[in-house]
Amino acid sequence: MEILDKVYVSPLPDSPYVKPFRLNYTQNGMVKSWDLLQVHDSVAIIVFNITRKVMIFVKQFRPAIYYNCIHAKDREQEFIDTKKYPASLGIALEMCAGIIDKNKPIEDIAREEVLEECGYNIKLKDLHKIISYRSGVGVQGSLQTLFYCEVSDDMKTEQGGGVDDEIIEVVEMSIPQIEEMLKSEGPLASPPSCLFALMWFLQNKADKFRK
Amino acid sequence: MEILDKVYVSPLPDSPYVKPFRLNYTQNGMVKSWDLLQVHDSVAIIVFNITRKVMIFVKQFRPAIYYNCIHAKDREQEFIDTKKYPASLGIALEMCAGIIDKNKPIEDIAREEVLEECGYNIKLKDLHKIISYRSGVGVQGSLQTLFYCEVSDDMKTEQGGGVDDEIIEVVEMSIPQIEEMLKSEGPLASPPSCLFALMWFLQNKADKFRK
Repeated sequence: MEILDKVYVSPLPDSPYVKPFRLNYTQNGMVKSWDLLQVHDSVAIIVFNITRKVMIFVKQFRPAIYYNCIHAKDREQEFIDTKKYPASLGIALEMCAGIIDKNKPIEDIAREEVLEECGYNIKLKDLHKIISYRSGVGVQGSLQTLFYCEVSDDMKTEQGGGVDDEIIEVVEMSIPQIEEMLKSEGPLASPPSCLFALMWFLQNKADKFRK
Repeated sequence: MEILDKVYVSPLPDSPYVKPFRLNYTQNGMVKSWDLLQVHDSVAIIVFNITRKVMIFVKQFRPAIYYNCIHAKDREQEFIDTKKYPASLGIALEMCAGIIDKNKPIEDIAREEVLEECGYNIKLKDLHKIISYRSGVGVQGSLQTLFYCEVSDDMKTEQGGGVDDEIIEVVEMSIPQIEEMLKSEGPLASPPSCLFALMWFLQNKADKFRK
């Protein structure tokens, strides 16, 4: 269980993570502008454990989700009331993923993320590229490339859980549990990229792992 | 064809659209912070025309996608070279969608978006809620609710194309064309919410419209 405390908002400093700016342009003779963010492209990986026939997810506290659960009037307090708004509201269930912030092939970055976050030591040939798409259309239009890889228990050489001060929990789900999750109305604390990845898996891979 | 001209970057002013800030917090005793954006929740609607058995998409120029197609070194010019980077790079194919910026039921907002963007005058009872999820996990954790609605040619009372200075094109695709799109490796100029919506439709609704 996450213990959350001393939650407050401050102005954006000169941030290495979020670089907002305005793009000005003329479209069909009409002068327009759009406010957006400079963000890194990324990779996401569907990791399926064939030994125990479970999908591998990462679970972590996501400040952006947490903040969006707080009612407008309660955002104006000096400190957010963490009794009313516990950390659990911001815990997201996601595919293993990472940003492309190093000058190396994206397959290498995907491989590293699977090791660091999930603890599985995969080979490059285990990674199969599925599709790439735009992460968003509003403020961030970065490219995300989705991979699929099958792992087995003997490839689990590390604990996983992320590096530095990341606090990531590795979570496993069976195929029926995934189907149950997708049948619910939500709200799910997952992004659409995760839901698309799960649908892709169910449609293209799940059958061979069903009893 | 979009004609794009005079494209340049300027600092973010006090923007009504993008409100970046830093969220500070203590997680399990560790002092942390995360930079994020305040964004509106939203609705997205899968609109399927049963008269002609086509999916209704909206197509528009998305500055965030366009900007992310520009190489880092070319971003440093005073003006972006629109011969090298034509508008077509930033044209996204999406589900009909809109932000929840009015104090009314989200079904009303979904209904309005279908009319304004796609030109179909639907009734509230035509809207079926599928699921809600988090739009993103990084900088924007707003909630998006996905609806499904079937329309027919006689419900098309308006042109569609958006309001004010929106430049939106309504695009139709057959079920085989959707399947073709999802089989490609990309890069697709679509967000994962659109891909999830298409997979959901193929899995849950498409069969009854196939010959």
